[in-house]
Amino acid sequence: MTLRAGDIVESLGGELFGDADRVIERLASLERATDTDLSYLVNPKLTHLLGSSQAGCVIVGTPMADAARSRGDCIVADNPHLYFAKVTQLWKRVHGDMPRPGIHPSAVVEDGAVIDSSASIGALCFVGRNVRIGADTVLHPRVTVGDGCVIGARCVIQSGAVIGGDGFGFAPHDGMWEKIEQLGAVRLGDDVEIGANTCVDRGALDDTVIEDGVKLDNQIQIGHNCHIGKHTAMAGCVGIAGSAHIGAYCTVGGAGMIAGHLTIADHVHVTAASVVLHSIDKPGQYTGFFPTTDHRTWEKNAATLRHLHALRDRVKRLERLLPRNDDVA
Amino acid sequence: MTLRAGDIVESLGGELFGDADRVIERLASLERATDTDLSYLVNPKLTHLLGSSQAGCVIVGTPMADAARSRGDCIVADNPHLYFAKVTQLWKRVHGDMPRPGIHPSAVVEDGAVIDSSASIGALCFVGRNVRIGADTVLHPRVTVGDGCVIGARCVIQSGAVIGGDGFGFAPHDGMWEKIEQLGAVRLGDDVEIGANTCVDRGALDDTVIEDGVKLDNQIQIGHNCHIGKHTAMAGCVGIAGSAHIGAYCTVGGAGMIAGHLTIADHVHVTAASVVLHSIDKPGQYTGFFPTTDHRTWEKNAATLRHLHALRDRVKRLERLLPRNDDVA
Amino acid sequence: MTLRAGDIVESLGGELFGDADRVIERLASLERATDTDLSYLVNPKLTHLLGSSQAGCVIVGTPMADAARSRGDCIVADNPHLYFAKVTQLWKRVHGDMPRPGIHPSAVVEDGAVIDSSASIGALCFVGRNVRIGADTVLHPRVTVGDGCVIGARCVIQSGAVIGGDGFGFAPHDGMWEKIEQLGAVRLGDDVEIGANTCVDRGALDDTVIEDGVKLDNQIQIGHNCHIGKHTAMAGCVGIAGSAHIGAYCTVGGAGMIAGHLTIADHVHVTAASVVLHSIDKPGQYTGFFPTTDHRTWEKNAATLRHLHALRDRVKRLERLLPRNDDVA
Repeated sequence: MTLRAGDIVESLGGELFGDADRVIERLASLERATDTDLSYLVNPKLTHLLGSSQAGCVIVGTPMADAARSRGDCIVADNPHLYFAKVTQLWKRVHGDMPRPGIHPSAVVEDGAVIDSSASIGALCFVGRNVRIGADTVLHPRVTVGDGCVIGARCVIQSGAVIGGDGFGFAPHDGMWEKIEQLGAVRLGDDVEIGANTCVDRGALDDTVIEDGVKLDNQIQIGHNCHIGKHTAMAGCVGIAGSAHIGAYCTVGGAGMIAGHLTIADHVHVTAASVVLHSIDKPGQYTGFFPTTDHRTWEKNAATLRHLHALRDRVKRLERLLPRNDDVA
Repeated sequence: MTLRAGDIVESLGGELFGDADRVIERLASLERATDTDLSYLVNPKLTHLLGSSQAGCVIVGTPMADAARSRGDCIVADNPHLYFAKVTQLWKRVHGDMPRPGIHPSAVVEDGAVIDSSASIGALCFVGRNVRIGADTVLHPRVTVGDGCVIGARCVIQSGAVIGGDGFGFAPHDGMWEKIEQLGAVRLGDDVEIGANTCVDRGALDDTVIEDGVKLDNQIQIGHNCHIGKHTAMAGCVGIAGSAHIGAYCTVGGAGMIAGHLTIADHVHVTAASVVLHSIDKPGQYTGFFPTTDHRTWEKNAATLRHLHALRDRVKRLERLLPRNDDVA
Repeated sequence: MTLRAGDIVESLGGELFGDADRVIERLASLERATDTDLSYLVNPKLTHLLGSSQAGCVIVGTPMADAARSRGDCIVADNPHLYFAKVTQLWKRVHGDMPRPGIHPSAVVEDGAVIDSSASIGALCFVGRNVRIGADTVLHPRVTVGDGCVIGARCVIQSGAVIGGDGFGFAPHDGMWEKIEQLGAVRLGDDVEIGANTCVDRGALDDTVIEDGVKLDNQIQIGHNCHIGKHTAMAGCVGIAGSAHIGAYCTVGGAGMIAGHLTIADHVHVTAASVVLHSIDKPGQYTGFFPTTDHRTWEKNAATLRHLHALRDRVKRLERLLPRNDDVA
């Protein structure tokens, strides 16, 4: 199926320079686009791709408008990345690929669940007792939402996600573990996305809370009683231990790990594969992982690392023998 | 729903100081509790919270009994953490939130499976051929138990868990991989908990074995032919490669990784995010991860780390020029 | 059930030395085998186990043929590991444990899906619109294959896997995230295995591609638009960020992480728990993780590591005071 260039700006705004009747058959990257494709340019560093691209039409920002117009048709938008996102949404809507409202007959919905009539509950989902699900929310197939959990409006829950499994709580006694029943639930705000096979555990006493606009990628684990501030985003394989309080507008790179009971300020960015063991009260980028090299180099460096403290002591001894000028002044 | 304070000690023991008819409306932490809530104090370092808490009644151990009584109603128990765990269980039972025995009509149970009549098989579960499931075990919705696996009594399997997927076994030939069919199964002891979306692979020839009382959090991967000793607990995102033999009473922190074919002694504690490549034969705490700092500091330290072995050689050279006193004696 | 030794060589080739009517009751490792078991020897370093093994018959390669014959019955094969793999397949086939062709009645298959009649779609699977699934492919129970995805022949998809969830794509605006609908799909070649609870995301515009013979273990995350070359294998808990291009014949150890938009050459081997942030253009082994030690040693080394760059500067100062011979020449 196709869209006319004119239909796009009619739906989404922006200024079209070129043929409103141009037929768009596909969305594509600048490198791969052909003359029936719509492409987009977000990163100014890639402006050089404009000249060589075969795209029939390109979405650009105002600063690139002249360059884009000199090569052919374009749509100029204030925020070309945002505009492109909205084009993908329009594309999906027009092509009828959006999940349909309603509850798939193979889904299991327990007593007391209140599901907005505009929400879509996919095949083979499980929705527990007294769950509430807001308007236009989509549960893809094979999602679990445990008893008493609340999901806001316009959320998207990918396949295999488990919202409201038990938190990991046990009382130790005589070397064994006695289960602490998890009596809280999970509350997701509006516009939250939860990735495939991601888990958000229910709280022990109070609820685990995911605020508006949070985006979680796949294979993430959110422990019980966490609080994730609004518009925070986390990439795949992240783990957040129980009772961590993560601020708003944060990002956590893939496989980043945050220990339990920490407080992370707003606007903190944790690099991929970094392990955060202490609270962070200042915005900024935080990093910690061993850089990868060829194996032989790693072996030598790792062997030295195992005795790094002793190496420091050896340097200290040398310094005592060769004092600084200001030390001996 | 509510419980009377007197009902609690009648069910669970402990000594009540205060009003047996006090109505408990909720369980809550000391900080959040109101005068209709029951709270608890486990950590002696938090004794100062007792004075300011609004809790109607507090569970404490004998050493804190006087402090607790001086502020109001309390229940004194030998092990207040264990007692609190049992209160959460009582609470859930009384409020009718326990999974019901029986097999949900949407579950698929294959021929030859033997499921105790007191067990609960949740919605949309798959139970393979010749599986055995013990008394009072609960499979939450959307769990897989593969053919021939055995699950003991009083186990809890959270949603999305896969017990008995194939182990990862292939014979290399000409750069390709030929599948080794995994002919073993998985055996879980009694009182085992398996977290949401956690996987325990079936053995190649013999079975993968999880002993009594083991607790596994979410998103964990247990490779084929592992043996996990009794009452060992692992936090989320842990990975245990194939044929590892983990002792009893161990703990593995979140995202800890243990290589295959290792033997880990009893009472070993692996810190979160640590990678264990060698067998460990002594109880204790073991750790290994790069400490996270602000990104700029990490960049500088990581750059040095890439040449750490050379730095050691430079220190060695300096030492040759400045011998130790006892070297030159 | 059992197999005769003669039946095995008749089916799979190899040369039997010993009794063709010997009844094999089980496959077992050399250490555990009894005289009714068939075992195998792959690693020449384990030749000493031959003498003490109670196995009724042993699969060996030509170089070990004499040693094996001197102890009893054996099957000599060019590649004993490959031969053993084929015996496990024969064993499973003969014992009727193979998944049956057809679509389980509890599976949900959407309009337009084309499933080869020899394929097996397990219980409670979801197969989206216009999906194509090739001959002899097996979807174990509780698998998701999203709309438009293509799966080749002889693939095995373990329980809980999600093929074709949305990639993690959002356009940032005003601190919030606007969803970029993921319009691509996933294409798996032939002979691909996908582990339990592993996720392969659909592409943003183009498809995510997994080539022939790729083997992915459990709990893996493959981001959108990745391209994984043929016969590459990855162990559990690996994460590959979006748009990474991984070569053929690579391996990634458990919990290895590869950043997005990288290119990794053929025949690259990433060690377990290593984080790859830069493209790799040379075959070889690459490693990077902090070696685990007892906790006290780690604490001291990690404390020094936080100031490693300063330590290097201190060594530099010492070197200025004690110049190299060739520096002062």
